[in-house]
Amino acid sequence: MIIDCHGHYTVLPKSHDEWREAQKAAFTAGTQCPPYPDITDADIRETIEANQLRLLKERGADLTIFSPRASAMAPHVGDEAVAIKWAQACNDLIARVVSLYSDTFAGVCMLPQSPEADMTASITELERCVSMGFIGCNLNPDPGGGHFKHPPLTDEFWYPFYEKMVELDVPAMIHVSGSCNPAMHATGAYYIAADTIAFMQLLEGDLFKDFPDLRFIIPHGGGAVPYHWGRYRGLADMLKKPDLGSHLMNNVFFDTCVYHQPGINLLADVIDNKNILFGSEMVGAVRGIDPTTGHYFDDIKRYVDALDITDAERHMIFEGNARRVFPRLDAQLKARGL
Amino acid sequence: MIIDCHGHYTVLPKSHDEWREAQKAAFTAGTQCPPYPDITDADIRETIEANQLRLLKERGADLTIFSPRASAMAPHVGDEAVAIKWAQACNDLIARVVSLYSDTFAGVCMLPQSPEADMTASITELERCVSMGFIGCNLNPDPGGGHFKHPPLTDEFWYPFYEKMVELDVPAMIHVSGSCNPAMHATGAYYIAADTIAFMQLLEGDLFKDFPDLRFIIPHGGGAVPYHWGRYRGLADMLKKPDLGSHLMNNVFFDTCVYHQPGINLLADVIDNKNILFGSEMVGAVRGIDPTTGHYFDDIKRYVDALDITDAERHMIFEGNARRVFPRLDAQLKARGL
Repeated sequence: MIIDCHGHYTVLPKSHDEWREAQKAAFTAGTQCPPYPDITDADIRETIEANQLRLLKERGADLTIFSPRASAMAPHVGDEAVAIKWAQACNDLIARVVSLYSDTFAGVCMLPQSPEADMTASITELERCVSMGFIGCNLNPDPGGGHFKHPPLTDEFWYPFYEKMVELDVPAMIHVSGSCNPAMHATGAYYIAADTIAFMQLLEGDLFKDFPDLRFIIPHGGGAVPYHWGRYRGLADMLKKPDLGSHLMNNVFFDTCVYHQPGINLLADVIDNKNILFGSEMVGAVRGIDPTTGHYFDDIKRYVDALDITDAERHMIFEGNARRVFPRLDAQLKARGL
Repeated sequence: MIIDCHGHYTVLPKSHDEWREAQKAAFTAGTQCPPYPDITDADIRETIEANQLRLLKERGADLTIFSPRASAMAPHVGDEAVAIKWAQACNDLIARVVSLYSDTFAGVCMLPQSPEADMTASITELERCVSMGFIGCNLNPDPGGGHFKHPPLTDEFWYPFYEKMVELDVPAMIHVSGSCNPAMHATGAYYIAADTIAFMQLLEGDLFKDFPDLRFIIPHGGGAVPYHWGRYRGLADMLKKPDLGSHLMNNVFFDTCVYHQPGINLLADVIDNKNILFGSEMVGAVRGIDPTTGHYFDDIKRYVDALDITDAERHMIFEGNARRVFPRLDAQLKARGL
């Protein structure tokens, strides 16, 4: 089976988006936020069937690990109470998608990481979502939205959350949200920069000594990391760290959101295939057709199909690694006889 | 001939570094900065011959385009007067290296880009350095040192400086300095992130419509850009920009500071060879030996030698492109009969 580890609910029922605007406006005005709207199953089916479900079927995947729209998570908006309500609303919508299409979607939650707050509310939301059947979370290393003011991921600031992740046996995708920095385009600059920065934070520290069972997925093909794999191996050496295989790569995984064949070839060439999870971020950052191939840029399965690797390796990328990194998904699939 | 477009003076006479510390201490204390020390030619020869000159000869390059130590440029330290004095001292030292080894080094200057200042002092320093024979400059897109608070490179903030660059016919390497952000390691995170962010700033704008003769080198193999070339082609399409070939790639060049063979292979495969300049950043970010090859990570010439390209293409990467991007270097070489 083919599991896409990186999907966001990017085209949403209008009333959900409108409520968000109302929530922001109420915060600014200091007035009461209106109640969350009634969204029918039909509203949800309409958005999902026209977008992710259609494309997933057309392109031949079986299941998408699905989280709220990344660029709209925006935990810096309003205060912590605003962030908590917004995270709950978005995660509840994901839970409804999963309940409507339980064969096809598995839920990953966003967190209410208001920039001034500690991780307490995020722990509460993670517990709530896992109790609803979610299998993982998105963890934002820069909740401020574009100036990288949070402590590195190896700092004890994050430890209470990591303890909960380990207890619940869920991984996190390290994923920033929209950029509020005019110098930093979200999907073209901020995402890729943050992926790269996150990896180097992990390289500089010794986080997985403290949390040997913690698992992170760095999306967008690991940012710049595989392309600069020699630099990172060399920096580990200069910083007197163990080789990357034992220092990081029992705990860090990259997805395949790299939108051309040469990039995917490099990824599979340089990074051990046990660390690569199929992911397309579809419908996401790049929605057009590549004129050099005639196919959608984000039709990633084609690139993985074209890799010169064994069937066993391809199976790991498409399914095996995702089941290992997301044990709760594996258990759900096994319960369904898969 | 083999021209290395990316070298920094990383091992310096001690008294130069000591003066910098004295300059900073004087600024903090509000006292007078001591005079710049007497540095003899022998002091300079000692540092250069033990490091860059030795390695350049051992590895088979002929000429290095040489600028002050990147991580120490730190224009955010002190105020603008401090930044100006420091830039002058560093650039003067580069001028002395070039005068001592005029066959082997060509000068590129740093700029006194104090974060609160406009580009006036940088224009003055560029003019001063070009009058001393410098052939280009380092332009820092984030002079604040790690929070990306400057306007994007396409903003009119930078235009007076670009006008001077075009008038003097010098290119800029887009290169940040040291990081004062504990979440962002300089050579492992900040440099690569800034390269990627800079490219996306250019992609979002239309700078080269206003400055068709402006030329930028994005170092470290273009950050994450070649690995994600499909993403950038797709984003150009989504943002209704021309294809990258005409939108950016008459004006933007990448160096080869990518410390393993698969990365260099990808670079040469994906990016037109007319846009690639040989560069090693030696002695720089990664100084060890790659245990998988037995050679220094930053012995980049080996990787370029191993590329499956024609001799004409290799000549462009090693020499031709550098002479085109740095016309003042080309003129100097021609004057020497080269």
